[in-house]
Amino acid sequence: MPKILIKEREHKIEVPILLTAVSGKIRVKNRSIVNEYGTPVAVKREGFALSNYVEWQIGYDVVKRETEKLADSSLPETEFTGANGKTKALYELSEYIWYFHKWGVISREELESIINYLNAISNNDLIDNNSELQIDRSHPIVKNINGFEFEYTQVKYPLLIHKFNGYEIVTEIKITEKQYAVGTQPMLYLCFPITELNAMTNLIGRTAETKEIAYFEITGSNIKVFLEMLKMFGTLSNNHKHDILQIINTILV
Amino acid sequence: MPKILIKEREHKIEVPILLTAVSGKIRVKNRSIVNEYGTPVAVKREGFALSNYVEWQIGYDVVKRETEKLADSSLPETEFTGANGKTKALYELSEYIWYFHKWGVISREELESIINYLNAISNNDLIDNNSELQIDRSHPIVKNINGFEFEYTQVKYPLLIHKFNGYEIVTEIKITEKQYAVGTQPMLYLCFPITELNAMTNLIGRTAETKEIAYFEITGSNIKVFLEMLKMFGTLSNNHKHDILQIINTILV
Repeated sequence: MPKILIKEREHKIEVPILLTAVSGKIRVKNRSIVNEYGTPVAVKREGFALSNYVEWQIGYDVVKRETEKLADSSLPETEFTGANGKTKALYELSEYIWYFHKWGVISREELESIINYLNAISNNDLIDNNSELQIDRSHPIVKNINGFEFEYTQVKYPLLIHKFNGYEIVTEIKITEKQYAVGTQPMLYLCFPITELNAMTNLIGRTAETKEIAYFEITGSNIKVFLEMLKMFGTLSNNHKHDILQIINTILV
Repeated sequence: MPKILIKEREHKIEVPILLTAVSGKIRVKNRSIVNEYGTPVAVKREGFALSNYVEWQIGYDVVKRETEKLADSSLPETEFTGANGKTKALYELSEYIWYFHKWGVISREELESIINYLNAISNNDLIDNNSELQIDRSHPIVKNINGFEFEYTQVKYPLLIHKFNGYEIVTEIKITEKQYAVGTQPMLYLCFPITELNAMTNLIGRTAETKEIAYFEITGSNIKVFLEMLKMFGTLSNNHKHDILQIINTILV
């Protein structure tokens, strides 16, 4: 992937979005009606439509020992210790906040208020501990399907959607089972319409070029949305809270 | 992985189960009450308990061009064309059925009756087309969590559990979104209590050795369960139905 473009004079960061990725953290999806779970779009074959959006499982750190990934960060020399004990550098969300703080767009007070906000949240109020946000199962009923007798249940996963007022950006928090342990695991996705992207030529109605890249612009007019996202990340679990507090302290140094 | 042991004289197949795998198709899980979704067990640390079971995403084919995987099949020379157009060999479920048919334990009539059964199922009755087995969403409600306003919905996935009468074996069919397309994707898992395994020494109450393997025995007394599973696989989708019909024809040749 090409690197993010940091335009210090304009106080702008341009994030490259690979439109043709079929796996990975960024994908073009389609939703037919608002709030429906999106389905992936084969943009090279089907082309782009107005109902398409970018789903981005945005990150905020990179483990320093993973040198290949570390090279994707523009701030490899930054350093904090993650909740998992690993030494990490700022990346993606934390990287953007670092620049806009350095440029004076995000103030020390704003960052400190997030520290105070997170320190005031008790363990029980974190998303992964919230009793109203647990994975639920319906009572099994007997169903005969093609001659086989089954017990049929529904497994119900909570989905939280937050809209940033005045912006075309939403965050989705999906709550699923932890993969290797008991408990739930909230995952945060950032979604925005593909019309928010800067492409070579207008995307709507045409197919994607091979490995085509478009750019998402982060400026003074939307960076506050990313700051809110950082704050929201800190509410997901104790580990997320630890990481976000460490990140803000690293930015403030 | 060690290979399956084929004991022709005893009409028995011993399938090696790697107890310490934390990812992959076979995992040791725990459930606290019947029918609850299981959670993975760290068997080297926590040890084995009576409530543990093996969850096995059993397969029935291997693509012949994938030579490393093909080496895991004891029948690499068998051949059929999958619904995806790829040339495949018998593997796992279809491999076991092949041997027990050769040994005269599974009759030609039994296999032909599955062909007739599957041919009689209409497209609309296949699991992935069943209107009662779709992924469902609750109507969103507004929820304020730690000061953030969210729309909260539940995404509901069907889960089907079939118990084989008189056996400690169940199959679970989980229905999820297709990863790269619109529609649902049923996945079949075979589950049985760890007490069904043959281990070096009794598993319950002790921890696993490094890369410890135990064996699951397939004999004349439980092979019919695997035949039923093959039949059930054929009802999942049109592609599965195509594959299973091809497999049975390959076994019958």
